[in-house]
Amino acid sequence: MQDIRFTNNVAGTLEQLAAALNPSHTFILVDENTSVHVLPLLQAQSPVIASWSVICIPSGDTNKNLDTLVNVWQALERGNANRKSLLVNLGGGVVTDLGGFAGATFKRGIHILNVPTTLLSAVDAAVGGKTGINFNGFKNEIGSFHEADAVIISTCFLDTLPETERLSGYAEMLKHGLIDRNSDYNALLAYDILDADFNALLPLLEQSVNVKRRIVAEDPLEHGIRRALNLGHTVGHAFESLAMERKHPVPHGYAVAWGTLVELILSTMKEGFPSEELQRFARYVLDHYGTFHIGCDDYPRLVELMRHDKKNLTEDINFTMLSGVGDVHIDRTATPEEIGAALDIYRDMAGI
Amino acid sequence: MQDIRFTNNVAGTLEQLAAALNPSHTFILVDENTSVHVLPLLQAQSPVIASWSVICIPSGDTNKNLDTLVNVWQALERGNANRKSLLVNLGGGVVTDLGGFAGATFKRGIHILNVPTTLLSAVDAAVGGKTGINFNGFKNEIGSFHEADAVIISTCFLDTLPETERLSGYAEMLKHGLIDRNSDYNALLAYDILDADFNALLPLLEQSVNVKRRIVAEDPLEHGIRRALNLGHTVGHAFESLAMERKHPVPHGYAVAWGTLVELILSTMKEGFPSEELQRFARYVLDHYGTFHIGCDDYPRLVELMRHDKKNLTEDINFTMLSGVGDVHIDRTATPEEIGAALDIYRDMAGI
Repeated sequence: MQDIRFTNNVAGTLEQLAAALNPSHTFILVDENTSVHVLPLLQAQSPVIASWSVICIPSGDTNKNLDTLVNVWQALERGNANRKSLLVNLGGGVVTDLGGFAGATFKRGIHILNVPTTLLSAVDAAVGGKTGINFNGFKNEIGSFHEADAVIISTCFLDTLPETERLSGYAEMLKHGLIDRNSDYNALLAYDILDADFNALLPLLEQSVNVKRRIVAEDPLEHGIRRALNLGHTVGHAFESLAMERKHPVPHGYAVAWGTLVELILSTMKEGFPSEELQRFARYVLDHYGTFHIGCDDYPRLVELMRHDKKNLTEDINFTMLSGVGDVHIDRTATPEEIGAALDIYRDMAGI
Repeated sequence: MQDIRFTNNVAGTLEQLAAALNPSHTFILVDENTSVHVLPLLQAQSPVIASWSVICIPSGDTNKNLDTLVNVWQALERGNANRKSLLVNLGGGVVTDLGGFAGATFKRGIHILNVPTTLLSAVDAAVGGKTGINFNGFKNEIGSFHEADAVIISTCFLDTLPETERLSGYAEMLKHGLIDRNSDYNALLAYDILDADFNALLPLLEQSVNVKRRIVAEDPLEHGIRRALNLGHTVGHAFESLAMERKHPVPHGYAVAWGTLVELILSTMKEGFPSEELQRFARYVLDHYGTFHIGCDDYPRLVELMRHDKKNLTEDINFTMLSGVGDVHIDRTATPEEIGAALDIYRDMAGI
């Protein structure tokens, strides 16, 4: 299983993990946010970290693209990176996804350490080896499976995160709670992420990351059970792409929260997911995340976007569905008509 | 070990291998040459192959670049490729390297079959999972390790190859003969590739491909013994890059032949490789490949290019050296001065 350290001694652990790899040269990739809010803290604590070459990219999912990737490749080249070099990705999902892919492909692969600084990247992007960029308007269209040598998970950067970022990450935690029988789903619904108590969050976060770690270890290349992690993402990615096309991007995690809601509606329609559980989940999502506004005339485009999703292997659209909390069924399909019906119910629940 | 079929029934074998993968959609990547000289033959023999979507790229190593890669990604996207799609790479090293990387990274990986049509790609590029493109003037700077699902090796396309292409591939066969105790190096030096007898070549080719297959199976990610295959390539790549900078590109295999000669000179200087074997090899190379013209003032740039090579992990330059035919030593180093001395001897032998 992937080497994951749960610790708030980030600088010390990072120094130690880097030293163990004995790299010829170390680069640290940050974005406009972490270069200001996080990197200086680590540099102040560690002269070693302060000596690393800094590569800075613009923040935001719209910059998770080929141009930024080319800039990172060129920076590695200018710094004479070779296969024994180390790239530390310090940031949210954009930094760990794009940096992971840059590192996976530069000279066919250099060392990678991930230090996620947002709740979303801690619980999702930084763990499990999925790397990539958006391409031609499609999310994560180009990428590879390439696990970081190790990941450091902490809660010490979360208190500076805006509320939207915390909610975004929590959507993935809710998803992990839904798909794993062993995790405490009720505790997740009882916890209020808006009233952030980071001491109470830490054990929930560790539990959540371990759900993903277990599933990835079982199926690293997503031939089977790993697709359980896609719950909420087929609809979620379509919402996210639609929002991008409207020039009003929404946070990934919000799209996943709404997408999970729509996919649980499909699960109720097709797999007997209990409707009282559906109502309970809908309440949490609509209370905390608000609603994503769509009308019937958006349905055809949404279905088209879902078809483009990499999980979709046939004419029908592929989904992960649940017949109950912890009872996962991968490779279920729904027709465009069934998806339309689920979106109708979603709009009804949301009052739009 | 990688699934490699040695057969001249290419159409039938390709149909069979493709059917076994049960792809949702099949694409066949060709370049300007194979689209004219090879694809029509296979299409005429097989209605199945004739039904596949054709993606055509410009030929030549200068087109093994990011622009061409982006075009292939876009063609896959326009064709609604998904993870169950199959990409057949039909061509030389440019097609199998670039197509392999496109396939490795599109939606994080689709199925790949390689059908090398040149001697060089049969014996080298198409086998072993190294994929990639040139970037910023450096060879194979961006890429990944991703083995094709299977490879079809045949000699039936070789008779239309120009002499330079045959020589180019034979350089890698000579290299395989040098690094493997079990292969018949004397038979290789006795065979005259210019007077091509393809019946006599086939068993030598199979033996040669199997040298590579064995080594790759032992060390797929090139942490150790796979670097034996880099014999000749540190100097060879530098010659190739210098030739590109001079706007007079040389065939990859020629560069490898000359590079192997220089690295055998280093082996004689530093590892006791027998000088009579060196003379025998030099005669074959200079007789068949002519000479690559360099002067003393090229040395600093050549050393700089070698330093950029992905095998080079320290300030000194990393080489694979031999103490005899079949006696391989990886991770040997030479200083810029020693390299200069070897280049002096090379120029002396070549009479330049």
